[in-house]
Amino acid sequence: MNINGVPHRTIWLAQDADGSAIVWTLDQRKMPHFFDFIALKSSAEIIVAIEEMWLRGAPLIGAAAALGFYLATTEIDKNASDWREQITEIAEKIRASRPTAVNLNWAIQRQLSILAKAKNLNEAQNFAQQTALDIVEEDVEICKQIGAHGLSIIEAISNQAPDKIVNILTHCNAGWLACVDWGTATAPIYQAHDKGIKVHVWVDETRPRNQGASLTAWELGKHGVPHTIIPDNAGGHLMQQGRVDMCIVGTDRVTRNGDTANKIGTYLKALAAHDNNVPFYVALPSTTMDFELQTGAEIPIETRSEREVKYIQGLHEGTLKEVLLTPNDSPALNYGFDVTPAKYITAFITEKGICTAAELLKIMND
Amino acid sequence: MNINGVPHRTIWLAQDADGSAIVWTLDQRKMPHFFDFIALKSSAEIIVAIEEMWLRGAPLIGAAAALGFYLATTEIDKNASDWREQITEIAEKIRASRPTAVNLNWAIQRQLSILAKAKNLNEAQNFAQQTALDIVEEDVEICKQIGAHGLSIIEAISNQAPDKIVNILTHCNAGWLACVDWGTATAPIYQAHDKGIKVHVWVDETRPRNQGASLTAWELGKHGVPHTIIPDNAGGHLMQQGRVDMCIVGTDRVTRNGDTANKIGTYLKALAAHDNNVPFYVALPSTTMDFELQTGAEIPIETRSEREVKYIQGLHEGTLKEVLLTPNDSPALNYGFDVTPAKYITAFITEKGICTAAELLKIMND
Repeated sequence: MNINGVPHRTIWLAQDADGSAIVWTLDQRKMPHFFDFIALKSSAEIIVAIEEMWLRGAPLIGAAAALGFYLATTEIDKNASDWREQITEIAEKIRASRPTAVNLNWAIQRQLSILAKAKNLNEAQNFAQQTALDIVEEDVEICKQIGAHGLSIIEAISNQAPDKIVNILTHCNAGWLACVDWGTATAPIYQAHDKGIKVHVWVDETRPRNQGASLTAWELGKHGVPHTIIPDNAGGHLMQQGRVDMCIVGTDRVTRNGDTANKIGTYLKALAAHDNNVPFYVALPSTTMDFELQTGAEIPIETRSEREVKYIQGLHEGTLKEVLLTPNDSPALNYGFDVTPAKYITAFITEKGICTAAELLKIMND
Repeated sequence: MNINGVPHRTIWLAQDADGSAIVWTLDQRKMPHFFDFIALKSSAEIIVAIEEMWLRGAPLIGAAAALGFYLATTEIDKNASDWREQITEIAEKIRASRPTAVNLNWAIQRQLSILAKAKNLNEAQNFAQQTALDIVEEDVEICKQIGAHGLSIIEAISNQAPDKIVNILTHCNAGWLACVDWGTATAPIYQAHDKGIKVHVWVDETRPRNQGASLTAWELGKHGVPHTIIPDNAGGHLMQQGRVDMCIVGTDRVTRNGDTANKIGTYLKALAAHDNNVPFYVALPSTTMDFELQTGAEIPIETRSEREVKYIQGLHEGTLKEVLLTPNDSPALNYGFDVTPAKYITAFITEKGICTAAELLKIMND
């Protein structure tokens, strides 16, 4: 999407001055206050970037993993007889860099099955590069299709009244910063905005890591989409007041019955939407489906450091400072995700179309 | 309650070195990082303390207003013939210092009706002092009674299993820091803890002003009550996981039908409690009832500065620093309260006993 009018992607493959392959990405840790494109020059640097969340978001992690796999193939001594084992070893390290990310596992698996067909290292490099680039382009295309399908929902609300502003609530960042371009939850919003439909986005700040207040607000602002940041506590009241026309969120994992894991707090917004007859949509690429799991009860929920609750980083007199928010000796608990039961989800917006939980398996398998 | 083993109150009347009346209170703006008792030496200083939230919480604001009214009576020239008008004028300024605070209005009204009986300034001073001290002591007694009634609920859960730890979720700060002592929502918790019942409190951080993470966590910690700070987003997941036995919150205003205004985000927790069969209690002194209003739709909801969402204060290398959390040019919206419909409230815990919404008018009028 646009940054100050110039189209950008979150990740792309390039060549270093010496001709070696490098991966460019955005360092999202300092956003929204500073934004830097950084060059990742090795699979080890890709692993650090995933582990330390320089980049985040399921599709972007998948793309980074696929590109990291390609970098790995360029790091092997061309005379090594165990090149296949060496690549596989690095692939497993990439896979372990963010254990709950389904797309990461999927991207590595796809690369490994193509690696199996390579007869030599040179072929392995070519296959891995092409697969990584395919994954990147496919992600852009998938998000674009999610956008096209979701656009119809926004358009229908917009048509309810002349000059209607469609108020859309979103949680966390399922935006282009989490993907390669367009985003998942934001794709319909960008397409509606680009088409001239009046939209306004309520951006949940999304404690404790504030991906909404920092990333979603940033990307909407840079693309020129009207938006307002709200505390996570406010969405219920806004829905009671009739100030939300629809919710769209992304997801980290959807089980066969439609139960949906997403950033902690999503479930509370789904409850409020249900209580106030506000439609609640989950946008997802089919790669986010986890066909192995029957229901949300089987989804493991990551617990992260309590430090993310007790401290926060922000801008103070031009530099980033981390401040303590709580009594130093009070413990904190930091769940990464929660599970929204399928019954609270109006529909899923996928690259293959819009469907209910009951139709999910069919549309995803088509 | 105790601060490191020493019993304290949040506000009390004392004499300055020159014999003039002063009011001591806690400056809650720097908490939990620093805590200072400060002397308020005039009604004007009381007004500033209420306006700028050095002190907050409906009952504490009421007590401060009553004491401020008494200070006002000591500030009038003893030869002034219009002493009654002068006091009334200051009283109206105190009343206007936090327009949505029901207890403030109630305390000023009570002082004014007693002022009407005073035959001279000296009598007005005596009456105002006694009324202020009565309001302070009554608040302590009311909170103690709320605690005694609520204790029975905690005790019943504790008795469900040997060594059962009762997990209680609370939102914002309806603790002793919001009252004179005990608190409203926390009173049952303190009484259970003091009785040796095993309790553990999930403390919602309560964005944007973080009264939970800063004040509730601080006061529970200082009194020795086990607790864990959680992001506001986490409560729903904890309830889904069966890790919450009950919720208790305070309230700023309850209407005749039992609809309950409380800190923004309370409604979301009530929805989650309802969805997971977790009992949801509202603790309130009868002074918080607003008999003028039929339902929550009539409650005006205060909108506060967007700055409270965009910036946050915390401790950095030993000093308080305010940091920017959002893109500088993104707007934010900051509602102070939301309304929880009576149907989501299991029962009200009042100084007169425990009752449902349907029984509220009867118990409060008894």
